Amino acid sequence: MITLTYRIETTGSVEAMAQKIASDQSTGTFVPVPGETEALKARVAARVLAVRQLPDANRPSWPEAADGAPVHCGEADIAFPLDAVGTDLAALMTIAIAGAFSIKGLTGLRVVDMALPEAFAHAHPGPQFGISGSRRLTGVEDRPIIGTIVKPALGLRPHETAELVGELIASGVDFIKDDEKLMSPAYSPLKERVAAIMPKVKEHEQKTGKKVMIAFGISHADPDEMMRNHDLVLEAGGNCAVVNINSIGFGGMSFLRKRSGLVLHAHRNGWDVLTRHPGIGFDFKVYQQFWRLLGVDQFQINGIGVKYWEPDDSFVRSFEALSKPLFSDADKPLPVAGSGQWGGQAPETYRRTGRTTDLLYLCGGGIVSHPQGPAAGVRAVRQAWEAAVADIPLETYAQDHPELAASIAKFGGGQGE
Amino acid sequence: MITLTYRIETTGSVEAMAQKIASDQSTGTFVPVPGETEALKARVAARVLAVRQLPDANRPSWPEAADGAPVHCGEADIAFPLDAVGTDLAALMTIAIAGAFSIKGLTGLRVVDMALPEAFAHAHPGPQFGISGSRRLTGVEDRPIIGTIVKPALGLRPHETAELVGELIASGVDFIKDDEKLMSPAYSPLKERVAAIMPKVKEHEQKTGKKVMIAFGISHADPDEMMRNHDLVLEAGGNCAVVNINSIGFGGMSFLRKRSGLVLHAHRNGWDVLTRHPGIGFDFKVYQQFWRLLGVDQFQINGIGVKYWEPDDSFVRSFEALSKPLFSDADKPLPVAGSGQWGGQAPETYRRTGRTTDLLYLCGGGIVSHPQGPAAGVRAVRQAWEAAVADIPLETYAQDHPELAASIAKFGGGQGE
Repeated sequence: MITLTYRIETTGSVEAMAQKIASDQSTGTFVPVPGETEALKARVAARVLAVRQLPDANRPSWPEAADGAPVHCGEADIAFPLDAVGTDLAALMTIAIAGAFSIKGLTGLRVVDMALPEAFAHAHPGPQFGISGSRRLTGVEDRPIIGTIVKPALGLRPHETAELVGELIASGVDFIKDDEKLMSPAYSPLKERVAAIMPKVKEHEQKTGKKVMIAFGISHADPDEMMRNHDLVLEAGGNCAVVNINSIGFGGMSFLRKRSGLVLHAHRNGWDVLTRHPGIGFDFKVYQQFWRLLGVDQFQINGIGVKYWEPDDSFVRSFEALSKPLFSDADKPLPVAGSGQWGGQAPETYRRTGRTTDLLYLCGGGIVSHPQGPAAGVRAVRQAWEAAVADIPLETYAQDHPELAASIAKFGGGQGE
Repeated sequence: MITLTYRIETTGSVEAMAQKIASDQSTGTFVPVPGETEALKARVAARVLAVRQLPDANRPSWPEAADGAPVHCGEADIAFPLDAVGTDLAALMTIAIAGAFSIKGLTGLRVVDMALPEAFAHAHPGPQFGISGSRRLTGVEDRPIIGTIVKPALGLRPHETAELVGELIASGVDFIKDDEKLMSPAYSPLKERVAAIMPKVKEHEQKTGKKVMIAFGISHADPDEMMRNHDLVLEAGGNCAVVNINSIGFGGMSFLRKRSGLVLHAHRNGWDVLTRHPGIGFDFKVYQQFWRLLGVDQFQINGIGVKYWEPDDSFVRSFEALSKPLFSDADKPLPVAGSGQWGGQAPETYRRTGRTTDLLYLCGGGIVSHPQGPAAGVRAVRQAWEAAVADIPLETYAQDHPELAASIAKFGGGQGE
């Protein structure tokens, strides 16, 4: 049995809408047609398990109700027989979710939970590297993996990027990524970028024993092209790739994961349009299940005090969702906190995410724009995490940690990048 | 130059938000970082071409504004240098669109137009069959291709489906499709369904010379599995497939199209969540460009008087969008009107879509539940279209066309399926 929970909004009856979702999304049709028997319905029909009324909304999420009409809300659990859907994720999305957004009479619909049976565990690869693989490859234990981002987002030529990356490698950072908007444009073909950057990674590794994980942007709408990008990175000794999951879709991700030798770092750009309106779309709790089964290793989920619209509570819920096994610990990707991070958010991030250091903490400007340079920026972020884990206020810890002190002075009033 | 038009909604300045989209989606970053020079910006920076103010909205689309705060609206044209993006559609989606939905301070964002340069025409396959191929394979000229859908959506075993399909083939219909929710579940593996159905298609072809186009559901999140499904259909002599484009994503579609020998009939389930709120998401005009370039041959876009939420005007705009060449007539897919159609909507469909018969007109219950059986149902739909093209009111034409008369009696007060 596959169980979905929908938050339903309607000027009519929530119960009737739940029944309609169950019917439309399985056997349903408006006109009785020959061949539709009760036995058949029992085989595949979705069933409403429970409806919980919620307080009326002030206004409809989709502006399709008459002004002043009451907008009723409720949550419905609907069960689909596994036989009706199977374990294919495209079938799951199409049958249990996608069509429901088209139903007339709804003024809002949000899919807020999904419980999949064990059969899905066996049908999908899940993360290849996940938390333990990310730690092993970076050699970082007992603290967050500290990462940074090459900026500006677009426009640098390969040798310019490599120069910046060289400085960042020298800073002691664990992880460096391409901006998600950088893939393989004419001014910076991936092949040339890899060729310019990887020697610096290897040189640093030989000198220090530390191999910095570089996440190269390999996304492409064409899976064959994306695999060529993947191979370029792997053959050059790279071990990570940024993947724009929504832009490549389930097909791109599935194809890549089956053939991948790289840690797959998921950027979910575009996700906001599916979740930003609280009455419409998806909770991250649902959405992330698809991508974890498909094999995401590291999952960007914003952070505390980000520069985007997303509230802190939403980030905390996303972190919780990623931290809960779907079927086993092996299907947990590494959560990635990013956007406007500089170390200042370490205490609250630590406190609100179950006091774990199993995360990749991604600071752009927070490292790169540190007044004493990126190496100091990295030290400042590590110091902030030391303080957070030891429950020492940052300001106190900064008294004998000058890099952190300089960070607080520069970013403390506002935000990094 | 790639030009996007965004409808911006904000309690702040529309002009400032337009500038922010341009900056964030190209070079942008909040903190000045080394290496960001003016020369580089000129190479890849997006540029705001124009901002047109629109009247304030009554309330914010995303409920993120203080009550009573004015919600300013405007349209902004923003140009991206082709060099900054390239012709990859995943890059286009990520760079020019996806991240913009995350910008703080917006209370709504809708991408309402997109103009791509000629370079995209050469980089993508487009439809393999489109309008002319669909006509050639069905042998239908000078009128709409008439199609129907096997119902119930889910639950029939292959021999039960084949029995229904056999009756539908005998009805004289041109096209029959699986419900989009039917792919290859355990109770009806595609292989068995194809094996049960295709002999009936061939038998009818040998007897009458007419080959009915059967669209089998081949979608799968895994492109390798989807190709196996594709091959099953092709090897059995089939010529069409239903593809759930949003559930397979750009990657699935791109992979399939490059290897496809089938007419690809796109079902856009899930699209509603991206377009139903008028202040959020996408106009179809934008969305369809991606899928046409990727190679959709037939595109479902609802119809007049559908059973879903979508208003008639929206369908008409979608039809117009599909009817306009992106670069040449060859990139036009066949529009598919469906949902609640029975012939009664033929006159308005014809009148409002430029008096064309270049469409696939899909009737479920409108054919299957005709009181005199499906053959009469097909005749009734063809009669409705004859009347529409000849500008004869349906009621008049029905006086000496009893099948149409029976359709009007049954479906005229309400809807088919």
